[in-house]
Amino acid sequence: MNIKFKEIVINTKRRREIVNITEEIQKFVNESKINNGICLVYSTHATSAIIINENESGLLEDIIRKINEDYPIEKGWLHNRIDDNADAHLASTFIGPSVTIPIKDGKLCLGTWQDIFFLELDGPRIGRKIIIEVLGV
Amino acid sequence: MNIKFKEIVINTKRRREIVNITEEIQKFVNESKINNGICLVYSTHATSAIIINENESGLLEDIIRKINEDYPIEKGWLHNRIDDNADAHLASTFIGPSVTIPIKDGKLCLGTWQDIFFLELDGPRIGRKIIIEVLGV
Amino acid sequence: MNIKFKEIVINTKRRREIVNITEEIQKFVNESKINNGICLVYSTHATSAIIINENESGLLEDIIRKINEDYPIEKGWLHNRIDDNADAHLASTFIGPSVTIPIKDGKLCLGTWQDIFFLELDGPRIGRKIIIEVLGV
Repeated sequence: MNIKFKEIVINTKRRREIVNITEEIQKFVNESKINNGICLVYSTHATSAIIINENESGLLEDIIRKINEDYPIEKGWLHNRIDDNADAHLASTFIGPSVTIPIKDGKLCLGTWQDIFFLELDGPRIGRKIIIEVLGV
Repeated sequence: MNIKFKEIVINTKRRREIVNITEEIQKFVNESKINNGICLVYSTHATSAIIINENESGLLEDIIRKINEDYPIEKGWLHNRIDDNADAHLASTFIGPSVTIPIKDGKLCLGTWQDIFFLELDGPRIGRKIIIEVLGV
Repeated sequence: MNIKFKEIVINTKRRREIVNITEEIQKFVNESKINNGICLVYSTHATSAIIINENESGLLEDIIRKINEDYPIEKGWLHNRIDDNADAHLASTFIGPSVTIPIKDGKLCLGTWQDIFFLELDGPRIGRKIIIEVLGV
Protein backbone atom coordinates (compact mmCIF):
# COMPACT_ATOMS: atom_id res chain seq x y z
CA MET A 1 0.00 0.00 0.00
CA ASN A 2 1.11 3.55 -0.73
CA ILE A 3 0.23 6.83 0.92
CA LYS A 4 0.99 10.22 -0.59
CA PHE A 5 0.35 13.68 0.80
CA LYS A 6 0.16 17.06 -0.84
CA GLU A 7 -0.64 20.42 0.65
CA ILE A 8 -2.54 22.96 -1.43
CA VAL A 9 -2.21 26.59 -0.32
CA ILE A 10 -4.98 29.03 -1.22
CA ASN A 11 -5.30 32.79 -0.84
CA THR A 12 -8.85 34.11 -0.82
CA LYS A 13 -10.12 37.58 -1.63
CA ARG A 14 -13.64 37.77 -0.24
CA ARG A 15 -15.40 36.87 3.02
CA ARG A 16 -17.25 33.98 1.37
CA GLU A 17 -15.59 32.40 -1.64
CA ILE A 18 -15.71 29.11 -3.49
CA VAL A 19 -12.48 27.87 -5.09
CA ASN A 20 -12.49 24.94 -7.51
CA ILE A 21 -9.65 22.56 -6.57
CA THR A 22 -10.66 19.54 -8.68
CA GLU A 23 -7.92 19.83 -11.27
CA GLU A 24 -5.11 20.09 -8.70
CA ILE A 25 -6.47 17.05 -6.88
CA GLN A 26 -6.80 14.90 -10.01
CA LYS A 27 -3.29 15.97 -11.06
CA PHE A 28 -1.91 14.83 -7.71
CA VAL A 29 -3.78 11.52 -7.99
CA ASN A 30 -2.06 11.04 -11.36
CA GLU A 31 1.36 11.87 -9.92
CA SER A 32 0.83 9.52 -6.96
CA LYS A 33 0.70 6.52 -9.33
CA ILE A 34 -1.95 5.08 -7.01
CA ASN A 35 -4.57 3.42 -9.16
CA ASN A 36 -7.10 2.19 -6.65
CA GLY A 37 -7.87 3.59 -3.23
CA ILE A 38 -9.27 6.72 -1.68
CA CYS A 39 -8.59 10.44 -1.80
CA LEU A 40 -9.17 12.40 1.41
CA VAL A 41 -9.37 16.17 0.96
CA TYR A 42 -9.08 17.89 4.35
CA SER A 43 -9.13 21.57 5.23
CA THR A 44 -7.12 22.44 8.35
CA HIS A 45 -9.23 25.50 9.22
CA ALA A 46 -12.23 25.98 11.50
CA THR A 47 -13.77 28.66 9.30
CA SER A 48 -13.78 26.82 5.98
CA ALA A 49 -15.20 23.64 4.47
CA ILE A 50 -14.82 21.27 1.54
CA ILE A 51 -17.85 20.60 -0.68
CA ILE A 52 -18.68 18.66 -3.83
CA ASN A 53 -21.20 19.81 -6.42
CA GLU A 54 -21.68 21.25 -9.90
CA ASN A 55 -19.33 23.92 -11.24
CA GLU A 56 -22.04 26.33 -12.42
CA SER A 57 -21.64 30.02 -11.60
CA GLY A 58 -25.29 30.59 -10.65
CA LEU A 59 -25.26 27.61 -8.31
CA LEU A 60 -22.03 28.75 -6.66
CA GLU A 61 -23.71 32.09 -5.91
CA ASP A 62 -26.79 30.25 -4.60
CA ILE A 63 -24.55 28.27 -2.22
CA ILE A 64 -23.08 31.48 -0.80
CA ARG A 65 -26.52 33.09 -0.54
CA LYS A 66 -27.85 30.03 1.31
CA ILE A 67 -24.92 30.14 3.76
CA ASN A 68 -25.48 33.86 4.37
CA GLU A 69 -29.15 33.21 5.10
CA ASP A 70 -28.57 30.16 7.32
CA TYR A 71 -25.59 31.62 9.21
CA PRO A 72 -26.22 35.34 9.73
CA ILE A 73 -23.18 37.31 10.87
CA GLU A 74 -25.02 39.16 13.63
CA LYS A 75 -27.27 37.06 15.81
CA GLY A 76 -25.91 37.56 19.30
CA TRP A 77 -23.45 34.66 18.96
CA LEU A 78 -21.40 34.18 22.12
CA HIS A 79 -18.21 33.46 20.19
CA ASN A 80 -18.32 37.04 18.94
CA ARG A 81 -17.47 38.30 22.43
CA ILE A 82 -13.88 37.24 21.65
CA ASP A 83 -13.90 37.25 17.85
CA ASP A 84 -16.17 38.33 14.97
CA ASN A 85 -16.66 35.15 12.99
CA ALA A 86 -19.05 32.85 14.86
CA ASP A 87 -21.13 32.53 11.68
CA ALA A 88 -18.12 31.12 9.82
CA HIS A 89 -17.31 28.64 12.61
CA LEU A 90 -20.92 27.46 12.70
CA ALA A 91 -21.12 26.94 8.94
CA SER A 92 -17.79 25.08 9.01
CA THR A 93 -18.98 22.86 11.87
CA PHE A 94 -22.13 21.77 10.07
CA ILE A 95 -20.82 21.58 6.49
CA GLY A 96 -17.65 19.78 7.50
CA PRO A 97 -13.90 20.02 6.84
CA SER A 98 -13.42 17.14 4.43
CA VAL A 99 -14.61 14.86 1.64
CA THR A 100 -13.47 11.37 0.69
CA ILE A 101 -13.65 10.21 -2.93
CA PRO A 102 -12.98 6.74 -4.34
CA ILE A 103 -10.06 6.36 -6.76
CA LYS A 104 -10.51 3.66 -9.40
CA ASP A 105 -8.21 2.97 -12.35
CA GLY A 106 -6.21 6.09 -11.56
CA LYS A 107 -9.20 8.41 -11.59
CA LEU A 108 -11.31 10.15 -8.97
CA CYS A 109 -14.81 8.62 -9.18
CA LEU A 110 -16.50 11.99 -9.56
CA GLY A 111 -19.78 12.08 -11.44
CA THR A 112 -20.20 14.26 -14.54
CA TRP A 113 -21.59 17.15 -12.49
CA GLN A 114 -19.31 16.85 -9.49
CA ASP A 115 -16.37 19.13 -8.79
CA ILE A 116 -14.48 19.59 -5.51
CA PHE A 117 -14.40 23.05 -3.93
CA PHE A 118 -12.68 24.80 -1.07
CA LEU A 119 -15.28 26.93 0.69
CA GLU A 120 -13.90 30.06 2.35
CA LEU A 121 -16.24 31.26 5.08
CA ASP A 122 -14.14 33.97 6.76
CA GLY A 123 -11.89 35.52 4.15
CA PRO A 124 -10.02 37.22 2.80
CA ARG A 125 -7.16 35.05 4.05
CA ILE A 126 -3.61 34.26 3.04
CA GLY A 127 -2.31 30.71 3.20
CA ARG A 128 -5.33 28.48 3.65
CA LYS A 129 -3.93 24.93 3.80
CA ILE A 130 -5.73 21.91 2.40
CA ILE A 131 -4.26 18.44 2.73
CA ILE A 132 -4.76 15.95 -0.07
CA GLU A 133 -4.08 12.39 0.97
CA VAL A 134 -4.11 9.53 -1.52
CA LEU A 135 -4.06 6.03 -0.04
CA GLY A 136 -4.18 2.80 -2.01
CA VAL A 137 -2.30 0.54 -4.39
CA MET B 1 -4.29 -4.89 1.52
CA ASN B 2 -7.32 -5.48 -0.67
CA ILE B 3 -9.65 -3.04 -2.40
CA LYS B 4 -12.98 -4.03 -3.90
CA PHE B 5 -15.50 -1.92 -5.76
CA LYS B 6 -19.15 -2.44 -6.52
CA GLU B 7 -21.61 -0.17 -8.28
CA ILE B 8 -25.24 -0.10 -7.13
CA VAL B 9 -27.73 1.23 -9.68
CA ILE B 10 -30.99 2.71 -8.41
CA ASN B 11 -34.12 3.90 -10.20
CA THR B 12 -36.24 6.37 -8.26
CA LYS B 13 -39.93 7.19 -8.63
CA ARG B 14 -40.47 10.45 -6.78
CA ARG B 15 -38.76 13.87 -6.58
CA ARG B 16 -37.55 13.21 -3.04
CA GLU B 17 -37.08 9.59 -2.09
CA ILE B 18 -35.11 7.63 0.48
CA VAL B 19 -33.83 4.18 -0.52
CA ASN B 20 -32.40 1.78 2.06
CA ILE B 21 -29.15 0.29 0.70
CA THR B 22 -27.80 -1.25 3.90
CA GLU B 23 -28.40 -4.87 2.98
CA GLU B 24 -26.70 -4.59 -0.41
CA ILE B 25 -23.69 -2.95 1.21
CA GLN B 26 -23.32 -5.53 3.98
CA LYS B 27 -23.71 -8.31 1.38
CA PHE B 28 -20.87 -6.81 -0.66
CA VAL B 29 -18.71 -6.48 2.45
CA ASN B 30 -19.29 -10.22 3.03
CA GLU B 31 -18.38 -11.06 -0.58
CA SER B 32 -15.24 -8.93 -0.43
CA LYS B 33 -13.75 -11.22 2.27
CA ILE B 34 -12.27 -8.07 3.80
CA ASN B 35 -12.54 -8.43 7.57
CA ASN B 36 -11.11 -5.16 8.83
CA GLY B 37 -11.01 -1.83 7.10
CA ILE B 38 -13.39 0.83 5.85
CA CYS B 39 -16.42 1.00 3.58
CA LEU B 40 -16.85 4.18 1.54
CA VAL B 41 -20.32 4.67 0.04
CA TYR B 42 -20.20 7.40 -2.60
CA SER B 43 -22.98 8.80 -4.79
CA THR B 44 -21.77 10.09 -8.16
CA HIS B 45 -24.60 12.63 -8.52
CA ALA B 46 -24.85 16.34 -7.62
CA THR B 47 -28.56 16.10 -6.76
CA SER B 48 -28.45 13.23 -4.28
CA ALA B 49 -26.80 12.34 -0.99
CA ILE B 50 -25.96 9.43 1.30
CA ILE B 51 -27.23 9.49 4.87
CA ILE B 52 -27.19 7.22 7.93
CA ASN B 53 -30.03 7.03 10.43
CA GLU B 54 -32.92 4.93 11.72
CA ASN B 55 -35.13 2.98 9.33
CA GLU B 56 -38.47 4.19 10.71
CA SER B 57 -41.14 5.25 8.23
CA GLY B 58 -42.24 8.34 10.17
CA LEU B 59 -38.67 9.56 10.50
CA LEU B 60 -37.99 9.05 6.79
CA GLU B 61 -40.99 11.27 6.05
CA ASP B 62 -39.71 13.83 8.58
CA ILE B 63 -36.35 13.88 6.79
CA ILE B 64 -38.05 14.67 3.48
CA ARG B 65 -40.29 17.30 5.09
CA LYS B 66 -37.23 18.96 6.67
CA ILE B 67 -35.41 19.04 3.32
CA ASN B 68 -38.46 20.56 1.62
CA GLU B 69 -38.64 23.25 4.29
CA ASP B 70 -34.91 24.02 4.30
CA TYR B 71 -34.45 23.90 0.52
CA PRO B 72 -37.59 25.38 -1.09
CA ILE B 73 -37.91 24.74 -4.82
CA GLU B 74 -38.77 28.33 -5.68
CA LYS B 75 -36.69 31.01 -4.03
CA GLY B 76 -35.17 32.91 -6.92
CA TRP B 77 -32.16 30.59 -7.13
CA LEU B 78 -29.77 31.65 -9.91
CA HIS B 79 -29.10 28.07 -10.99
CA ASN B 80 -32.74 27.84 -12.06
CA ARG B 81 -32.04 30.22 -14.94
CA ILE B 82 -30.46 27.24 -16.70
CA ASP B 83 -32.14 24.34 -14.89
CA ASP B 84 -34.98 23.74 -12.40
CA ASN B 85 -33.27 21.93 -9.55
CA ALA B 86 -31.15 24.40 -7.55
CA ASP B 87 -32.89 23.21 -4.36
CA ALA B 88 -31.64 19.66 -5.02
CA HIS B 89 -28.07 20.81 -5.71
CA LEU B 90 -28.04 22.89 -2.53
CA ALA B 91 -29.32 20.04 -0.36
CA SER B 92 -26.76 17.70 -1.95
CA THR B 93 -23.95 20.20 -1.32
CA PHE B 94 -24.70 20.57 2.37
CA ILE B 95 -25.76 16.98 3.19
CA GLY B 96 -22.87 15.45 1.26
CA PRO B 97 -22.30 12.69 -1.29
CA SER B 98 -20.77 9.99 0.92
CA VAL B 99 -20.40 8.18 4.21
CA THR B 100 -17.50 6.10 5.54
CA ILE B 101 -18.17 3.22 7.95
CA PRO B 102 -15.63 1.07 9.83
CA ILE B 103 -15.56 -2.66 9.00
CA LYS B 104 -14.56 -4.90 11.90
CA ASP B 105 -14.60 -8.70 11.96
CA GLY B 106 -16.35 -8.75 8.59
CA LYS B 107 -19.20 -6.48 9.65
CA LEU B 108 -20.11 -2.84 9.13
CA CYS B 109 -19.89 -1.14 12.53
CA LEU B 110 -23.41 0.25 12.29
CA GLY B 111 -25.26 0.86 15.54
CA THR B 112 -28.59 -0.83 16.27
CA TRP B 113 -30.56 2.13 14.90
CA GLN B 114 -28.32 2.96 11.94
CA ASP B 115 -29.12 2.10 8.35
CA ILE B 116 -27.52 3.53 5.19
CA PHE B 117 -29.76 5.34 2.70
CA PHE B 118 -29.50 6.79 -0.78
CA LEU B 119 -31.28 10.14 -0.73
CA GLU B 120 -32.83 11.14 -4.06
CA LEU B 121 -33.31 14.90 -4.22
CA ASP B 122 -34.28 15.40 -7.89
CA GLY B 123 -36.12 12.31 -9.06
CA PRO B 124 -37.64 10.44 -10.60
CA ARG B 125 -34.43 9.23 -12.23
CA ILE B 126 -33.19 6.12 -13.99
CA GLY B 127 -29.72 4.76 -13.29
CA ARG B 128 -28.47 6.55 -10.18
CA LYS B 129 -25.00 5.11 -9.56
CA ILE B 130 -23.55 4.59 -6.10
CA ILE B 131 -20.02 3.29 -5.65
CA ILE B 132 -19.27 0.99 -2.73
CA GLU B 133 -15.58 0.69 -1.98
CA VAL B 134 -14.25 -1.72 0.61
CA LEU B 135 -10.61 -1.27 1.60
CA GLY B 136 -8.77 -3.33 4.19
CA VAL B 137 -7.34 -6.72 5.04
CA MET C 1 -0.68 -1.99 6.36
CA ASN C 2 -2.02 -1.92 9.91
CA ILE C 3 -5.50 -1.36 11.24
CA LYS C 4 -6.28 -0.63 14.88
CA PHE C 5 -9.61 -0.11 16.57
CA LYS C 6 -10.55 1.47 19.85
CA GLU C 7 -13.96 2.08 21.38
CA ILE C 8 -14.53 5.20 23.46
CA VAL C 9 -17.50 5.06 25.84
CA ILE C 10 -19.13 8.31 26.92
CA ASN C 11 -21.83 9.11 29.47
CA THR C 12 -23.67 12.38 28.90
CA LYS C 13 -25.57 14.51 31.39
CA ARG C 14 -27.70 16.87 29.31
CA ARG C 15 -30.04 16.61 26.31
CA ARG C 16 -27.55 18.45 24.07
CA GLU C 17 -23.92 18.21 25.03
CA ILE C 18 -20.56 18.59 23.33
CA VAL C 19 -17.70 16.38 24.55
CA ASN C 20 -14.11 17.01 23.46
CA ILE C 21 -12.53 13.68 22.44
CA THR C 22 -9.42 15.01 20.69
CA GLU C 23 -6.92 13.98 23.34
CA GLU C 24 -8.16 10.40 23.56
CA ILE C 25 -7.99 10.10 19.79
CA GLN C 26 -4.46 11.48 19.47
CA LYS C 27 -3.37 9.22 22.33
CA PHE C 28 -4.73 6.20 20.48
CA VAL C 29 -3.02 7.31 17.27
CA ASN C 30 0.25 7.39 19.26
CA GLU C 31 -0.35 3.92 20.72
CA SER C 32 -1.21 2.50 17.30
CA LYS C 33 2.33 3.20 16.04
CA ILE C 34 0.77 4.05 12.69
CA ASN C 35 2.65 7.02 11.28
CA ASN C 36 0.83 7.72 8.05
CA GLY C 37 -2.75 6.97 7.15
CA ILE C 38 -6.23 7.99 8.20
CA CYS C 39 -8.24 8.16 11.40
CA LEU C 40 -11.97 7.46 11.13
CA VAL C 41 -14.04 8.56 14.14
CA TYR C 42 -17.50 6.99 13.97
CA SER C 43 -20.44 7.30 16.34
CA THR C 44 -22.68 4.22 16.42
CA HIS C 45 -25.81 6.17 17.42
CA ALA C 46 -28.64 7.71 15.38
CA THR C 47 -29.11 10.60 17.80
CA SER C 48 -25.55 11.89 17.96
CA ALA C 49 -22.87 13.22 15.62
CA ILE C 50 -19.15 13.89 15.35
CA ILE C 51 -17.97 17.41 14.56
CA ILE C 52 -14.69 19.30 14.19
CA ASN C 53 -14.22 22.93 15.20
CA GLU C 54 -12.70 25.31 17.73
CA ASN C 55 -12.71 24.47 21.43
CA GLU C 56 -14.08 27.82 22.64
CA SER C 57 -16.83 27.77 25.25
CA GLY C 58 -18.94 30.51 23.64
CA LEU C 59 -18.80 28.78 20.27
CA LEU C 60 -19.81 25.44 21.77
CA GLU C 61 -22.89 27.14 23.22
CA ASP C 62 -23.59 28.76 19.84
CA ILE C 63 -23.48 25.33 18.20
CA ILE C 64 -26.09 24.00 20.63
CA ARG C 65 -28.24 27.10 20.24
CA LYS C 66 -28.10 26.75 16.43
CA ILE C 67 -29.13 23.09 16.65
CA ASN C 68 -32.03 23.96 18.95
CA GLU C 69 -33.20 26.61 16.50
CA ASP C 70 -32.79 24.46 13.38
CA TYR C 71 -34.23 21.27 14.90
CA PRO C 72 -37.09 22.25 17.23
CA ILE C 73 -38.28 19.47 19.53
CA GLU C 74 -41.95 20.04 18.82
CA LYS C 75 -42.92 20.50 15.21
CA GLY C 76 -45.39 17.71 14.54
CA TRP C 77 -42.65 15.27 13.56
CA LEU C 78 -44.11 11.87 12.60
CA HIS C 79 -41.33 9.95 14.36
CA ASN C 80 -42.65 11.35 17.65
CA ARG C 81 -45.75 9.15 17.33
CA ILE C 82 -43.50 6.28 18.47
CA ASP C 83 -40.72 8.17 20.26
CA ASP C 84 -39.92 11.70 21.44
CA ASN C 85 -36.64 12.48 19.75
CA ALA C 86 -37.27 13.17 16.04
CA ASP C 87 -35.34 16.43 16.37
CA ALA C 88 -32.25 14.52 17.51
CA HIS C 89 -32.53 12.00 14.66
CA LEU C 90 -32.89 14.81 12.12
CA ALA C 91 -29.86 16.71 13.43
CA SER C 92 -27.84 13.48 13.44
CA THR C 93 -28.90 12.69 9.86
CA PHE C 94 -27.78 16.05 8.49
CA ILE C 95 -24.68 16.65 10.62
CA GLY C 96 -23.41 13.10 10.15
CA PRO C 97 -22.01 10.28 12.31
CA SER C 98 -18.32 10.51 11.45
CA VAL C 99 -15.22 12.45 10.51
CA THR C 100 -12.03 11.29 8.78
CA ILE C 101 -8.71 13.00 9.54
CA PRO C 102 -5.34 12.46 7.84
CA ILE C 103 -2.50 11.08 9.98
CA LYS C 104 0.98 12.25 8.99
CA ASP C 105 4.24 11.61 10.86
CA GLY C 106 2.27 10.10 13.75
CA LYS C 107 0.02 13.10 14.22
CA LEU C 108 -3.58 13.95 13.38
CA CYS C 109 -3.47 16.73 10.76
CA LEU C 110 -5.76 18.99 12.77
CA GLY C 111 -5.38 22.72 12.30
CA THR C 112 -4.55 25.00 15.23
CA TRP C 113 -8.24 25.73 15.87
CA GLN C 114 -9.61 22.26 15.22
CA ASP C 115 -10.69 19.84 17.92
CA ILE C 116 -12.85 16.72 17.55
CA PHE C 117 -16.12 16.54 19.47
CA PHE C 118 -18.82 14.00 20.22
CA LEU C 119 -22.16 15.76 19.87
CA GLU C 120 -24.92 14.37 22.09
CA LEU C 121 -28.32 15.25 20.69
CA ASP C 122 -30.64 13.16 22.87
CA GLY C 123 -29.05 12.78 26.29
CA PRO C 124 -28.57 12.19 29.06
CA ARG C 125 -27.34 8.73 28.06
CA ILE C 126 -25.11 6.06 29.50
CA GLY C 127 -22.67 4.18 27.28
CA ARG C 128 -22.46 6.13 24.03
CA LYS C 129 -19.98 4.20 21.88
CA ILE C 130 -17.60 5.84 19.44
CA ILE C 131 -15.28 3.78 17.28
CA ILE C 132 -11.82 5.10 16.48
CA GLU C 133 -10.20 3.34 13.56
CA VAL C 134 -6.63 4.04 12.54
CA LEU C 135 -5.52 2.63 9.19
CA GLY C 136 -2.13 3.07 7.61
CA VAL C 137 1.57 2.24 7.83
